[in-house]
Amino acid sequence: MSNQVSEDHEAPSPTQYLAELVVASRWDDISADVVHEAKRSFLNWLGVAIGASGHEATEIALQVVSEFSGPPTASVLGTSHSTDILSAAFLNGMSSHVFDFDDTHLDTIIHPTGPVAPAVLAIAESRSLSGSDLLHALVLGIEVECRLGNAVYPEHYEIGWHITGTTGVFGSAAASAKLLGLGVPGTTMSLGLAASQASGLREMFGTMTKPFHVGRAAQNGLLAALLAGRGFTSSLKAIEALRGFANVMSTRHDFSKISGPQTVDYQILHNSYKPFACGIVIHPVIDGCIQLRNQVGIDVSDVVAVELKVHPLVLELTGKHSPTAGLEGKFSVYHSAAVALIDGAGGEDQYSDERVLNQRVVALRNRVSAKAGEGVREDEAWVSIRTLDGLVHEVHVEHAIGSRHRPMTDAELESKFRATAGRVLPKENLNELIDLCWDLDTLQLASVIAKAARP
Amino acid sequence: MSNQVSEDHEAPSPTQYLAELVVASRWDDISADVVHEAKRSFLNWLGVAIGASGHEATEIALQVVSEFSGPPTASVLGTSHSTDILSAAFLNGMSSHVFDFDDTHLDTIIHPTGPVAPAVLAIAESRSLSGSDLLHALVLGIEVECRLGNAVYPEHYEIGWHITGTTGVFGSAAASAKLLGLGVPGTTMSLGLAASQASGLREMFGTMTKPFHVGRAAQNGLLAALLAGRGFTSSLKAIEALRGFANVMSTRHDFSKISGPQTVDYQILHNSYKPFACGIVIHPVIDGCIQLRNQVGIDVSDVVAVELKVHPLVLELTGKHSPTAGLEGKFSVYHSAAVALIDGAGGEDQYSDERVLNQRVVALRNRVSAKAGEGVREDEAWVSIRTLDGLVHEVHVEHAIGSRHRPMTDAELESKFRATAGRVLPKENLNELIDLCWDLDTLQLASVIAKAARP
Repeated sequence: MSNQVSEDHEAPSPTQYLAELVVASRWDDISADVVHEAKRSFLNWLGVAIGASGHEATEIALQVVSEFSGPPTASVLGTSHSTDILSAAFLNGMSSHVFDFDDTHLDTIIHPTGPVAPAVLAIAESRSLSGSDLLHALVLGIEVECRLGNAVYPEHYEIGWHITGTTGVFGSAAASAKLLGLGVPGTTMSLGLAASQASGLREMFGTMTKPFHVGRAAQNGLLAALLAGRGFTSSLKAIEALRGFANVMSTRHDFSKISGPQTVDYQILHNSYKPFACGIVIHPVIDGCIQLRNQVGIDVSDVVAVELKVHPLVLELTGKHSPTAGLEGKFSVYHSAAVALIDGAGGEDQYSDERVLNQRVVALRNRVSAKAGEGVREDEAWVSIRTLDGLVHEVHVEHAIGSRHRPMTDAELESKFRATAGRVLPKENLNELIDLCWDLDTLQLASVIAKAARP
Repeated sequence: MSNQVSEDHEAPSPTQYLAELVVASRWDDISADVVHEAKRSFLNWLGVAIGASGHEATEIALQVVSEFSGPPTASVLGTSHSTDILSAAFLNGMSSHVFDFDDTHLDTIIHPTGPVAPAVLAIAESRSLSGSDLLHALVLGIEVECRLGNAVYPEHYEIGWHITGTTGVFGSAAASAKLLGLGVPGTTMSLGLAASQASGLREMFGTMTKPFHVGRAAQNGLLAALLAGRGFTSSLKAIEALRGFANVMSTRHDFSKISGPQTVDYQILHNSYKPFACGIVIHPVIDGCIQLRNQVGIDVSDVVAVELKVHPLVLELTGKHSPTAGLEGKFSVYHSAAVALIDGAGGEDQYSDERVLNQRVVALRNRVSAKAGEGVREDEAWVSIRTLDGLVHEVHVEHAIGSRHRPMTDAELESKFRATAGRVLPKENLNELIDLCWDLDTLQLASVIAKAARP
């Protein structure tokens, strides 16, 4: 956290560069593969946002926010409520991260859609914008957010910042500025106002305040653009200044990741989708446990020991031995392995308070041990199970499902959408919403999606 | 910014300690001198908040926020508008820092009242609470904010954090929790939600985003308490955790400043009030320039050179040689010295865009030089003026007016209130508001103050 001087004086100002990138981009520039990935990102996001709309965290937030909402011009997904656009951006952003089941930009472990999509959906709904407007802004917001993340990851995250909150507010600000039609000065000021709201500590993981970060990033970025659009002033070099974002909030930065020649492809193409409702670092373990369960047909009461060899981050992030609540279970590789062996799944049901306290799950969990292996990749794991008969069953997960090398298919994403959004909405809505998401680029009014996401 | 382990394991958890302090405190515990200082703080705050209500920054914020405000239950000071309490907390907090003319906790250069008073006023107005309720919560909010500041200053500030924003959100959360009647668990959760919203970069100094930090600290702390009051969860050790506030946002901390035996007096007794409408570090220079002008009767056109010897922070914070806008002028010791010599004052009028660009001011400003002196205290300065006739006039300001050793009197605070609030309100309101502030502890309804602050 020293106020080090930028390593790369010659590069263009990253703040200006990002603002110009956003303003200059035209919908026609966005290639078909990028558009398709944006639809996949949006579908996945919509499912988890709808699915968690009835969660206690979302409901508390809705109660509080509703008391102070202005004109109801934006839908609260999965509910029959509408609020003002700032409140809707907060609620839908928060809801989409409650299950920890949203997407992941693998280079930075940012959950990229959560802070951006709720802001663009709220603006699009309230201003009658088209589906292509929405997708375009989504792509650009994710671009800004993830390039910034690339520039400061992993140090920024290692210090203790929840990177989805801290970079997400820039993504939301950029996307909102695009939809509000701001020029380069206004977009730059939006990024400045975003920088001054960047926040969210990793200490909050396992509590309702973690998804709160995502909702606030969406809302705060939108507020930034609304203010900048009226002439509110901020710094023009919020990212690179001596006392700007990168120097204050990271111990290292590499601005070539923002504006260098290697930044030609779109960051959304690096997005991935979680097959399991917990931190992505546990996915290889869950994948391995489900494989062993299905292949070997292990009787859980015969299991003497479960040994895991994992990437070091797994123990750092998900090392809770004895979770006592569903949310905490998501930060326990031990619970995740046990419940995956018993249930053959890693969905939201496996992370209920009840399941985390279930006697059989707890008994098996206590027989799980994990150690960090040298050279183990983040999407890799070894799972080894010793049974009463003395046999050892092993599996090596080279690349977990949902990882870069084994991406979820469109059909798998549709299934996931049905499972998540289906917690709240009837089947008709699910079919309609899936169709609308794939047709997003041709929708004249993006608002039809928000309307179809009401029960 | 290493994730160092706390230096003081034995001390009680600072987060818990602060929550217990707030919950346990009773109005009867607050001594008369503390009550009087709280009234002085509130009067000073009210004046600057009202005075800047017509400023462009406040007006833009009001335009944006009004569009999204819920039920209008709280007054926007100095205007005929009301908004919901979250919006009012934001607007009044922001307005009070626009002139950079509010109070200063000298140990930490936190502006303590700005993030706390707007939240407690909004709650008190909307819930028909008494003046003593308001004062009590104000004292406690400032207590939390400034103890936390003491624990991380100066390193936290030196990194680049705007300490009024980052600690202010804790003060607002604590004060709001007190007025909402939360117990220790709810107050602790409020502090957790505050920690995850702590933000505001010093890079924004000189732009509208600086006062924005103060308004958002007030609003975000209030939101924290509202959510916690409904059962929203957060960390129980937000300040001291490995990835909590102190480790992530400072390079050093001393938690004995929060809970140690030396913390028996109230932090509000360390508050001071600015006689001049700019950063407190320039005050000794302005004081010296006004003294020289009044004593020697210098003709400005005769001045060949103005030499200043100052504390190093003066050059670091206010070293702008050629400001081009009023707000920037507040970060220029050169402009401040020149305009003080010409006008004999350092009020808001000396920091208008017009005054900063005035030819005579610019000509004199270009003859001002400043150097940091070894061992010069923050409230000390030497001003030396050489005139055409070869004479050198010198003054040594040992303690600037408004500093700990030369505090403003109640009468001087009343004059300042008339000058600031008088920009917006007629004289009758000013007299009424001054009387109400001195009577605050006996007011059955604190809301009468908010009502009297409308034009």
